[in-house]
Amino acid sequence: MPRFRLDIEYDGSLYAGWQHQADQPSVQQAIERAVEKFCGEQVRLRAAGRTDAGVHATAQVAHVDLVKAWPNDKVRDAINAHLQISGDRIAILRAAAVPDGFDARFSATGRHYLYRIVNRRAPAALDKGKVWWVPKRLDAAAMHEAAKQLLGRHDFTTFRSTQCQANSPVRTLERLEVNRIGDVIEIRASARSFLHNQVRSMVGSLKRVGEGGWTAAKLRAALDAHDRAACGQVAPPDGLFLVGVDYPDTESVHPD
Amino acid sequence: MPRFRLDIEYDGSLYAGWQHQADQPSVQQAIERAVEKFCGEQVRLRAAGRTDAGVHATAQVAHVDLVKAWPNDKVRDAINAHLQISGDRIAILRAAAVPDGFDARFSATGRHYLYRIVNRRAPAALDKGKVWWVPKRLDAAAMHEAAKQLLGRHDFTTFRSTQCQANSPVRTLERLEVNRIGDVIEIRASARSFLHNQVRSMVGSLKRVGEGGWTAAKLRAALDAHDRAACGQVAPPDGLFLVGVDYPDTESVHPD
Repeated sequence: MPRFRLDIEYDGSLYAGWQHQADQPSVQQAIERAVEKFCGEQVRLRAAGRTDAGVHATAQVAHVDLVKAWPNDKVRDAINAHLQISGDRIAILRAAAVPDGFDARFSATGRHYLYRIVNRRAPAALDKGKVWWVPKRLDAAAMHEAAKQLLGRHDFTTFRSTQCQANSPVRTLERLEVNRIGDVIEIRASARSFLHNQVRSMVGSLKRVGEGGWTAAKLRAALDAHDRAACGQVAPPDGLFLVGVDYPDTESVHPD
Repeated sequence: MPRFRLDIEYDGSLYAGWQHQADQPSVQQAIERAVEKFCGEQVRLRAAGRTDAGVHATAQVAHVDLVKAWPNDKVRDAINAHLQISGDRIAILRAAAVPDGFDARFSATGRHYLYRIVNRRAPAALDKGKVWWVPKRLDAAAMHEAAKQLLGRHDFTTFRSTQCQANSPVRTLERLEVNRIGDVIEIRASARSFLHNQVRSMVGSLKRVGEGGWTAAKLRAALDAHDRAACGQVAPPDGLFLVGVDYPDTESVHPD
């Protein structure tokens, strides 16, 4: 069966997350339903990142197997047409036939997240639901400096949801950068893979640093504690975006 | 009575426009209601730009007269608190006591708008309602070149709503620039003032140029026709943002 890679954008605020949920709308289910409307097949998608409720994506990647070798553009446009009809806030940016060995989840070699904080006295109006509003002034430079404590290979138990199902709490954090652009603070995180709630947990603790409550040394001590109770606040999902997934040999992807 | 200047951000997709409407929510009414909840006064705001239904603002400016000389930050925070309670997508970015002579509408010497088109095959998911989705590829460079035909002082009857109440159709367009950033085309327009629907009418005609249907000469001919029927499609409100208002002597604004 021909396998297709789908690159997907969605507004997570309308969904209980990527993954199927009983009685709640999920991104996965909405796309699977659109695929069924398009070609009559009941499929199961697998995604690179199982984003939580309220988390957005500009570049989620999933794969799906279809019976027919449809043209790539037909797959993209047909799924989008059905997502438009159902009123979903999901768009297939690209569909591309890929080798059978491609697995959106297990072939991924890197995941990139962006977290956005609006840091001003006034609440977010235009970006409500797509940003974390923090009215108290944050020191983004201090956050950036402290973030370096978390880079590299560590046991991230402190920054891991108690519901995380990963076998190991050890991950290698390749990038964690904090940058202020006017009233917006952007935090960019990259790793081969993340633990459940890891980015939001790190962001919530970095906010403590930005407020002046935590020093970089305190952040390091929290990491070294390997204890979930040492974590600062978990940042809300609103500000989190999955913005990229890396794969090896992308040149092997079949062009249309 | 102390006069306050309010700088305002809003998501226009939830409102029938800035101005009071019978039986429909307006931005003006929502803020006036919040002011009343804050200080018990029934006030009337006047804004620099009476944006249409669905049009957004990152920097609308209005003024309001209050009985008491409240501290600026108190005015901002109290109105925002009530706007949050009512669930409005409106935020007061800044409140500042200003001289009595300041009039948000009549003192304004420049207005700046941004229009955003997402130009790709996939519909907008994350930015739905805040962008015009145009699936057919547009030539932004051709649009930018053609836009120069509209710069300067002209009779803009072609690009004016038939419901426009301005005395004269003559305006001086100071800036009209088109710029592609990836899949997004940004159109920036500046003038002392605009006619009703002028920006959206110009954008709709520029889109014709971008599609290849109109040449720059055709756009010029439409302008010179002074005839509403010569206008291309009026672009939808979704992509339009009021992003700035200029005033003379801004140094005379009272600091808090």
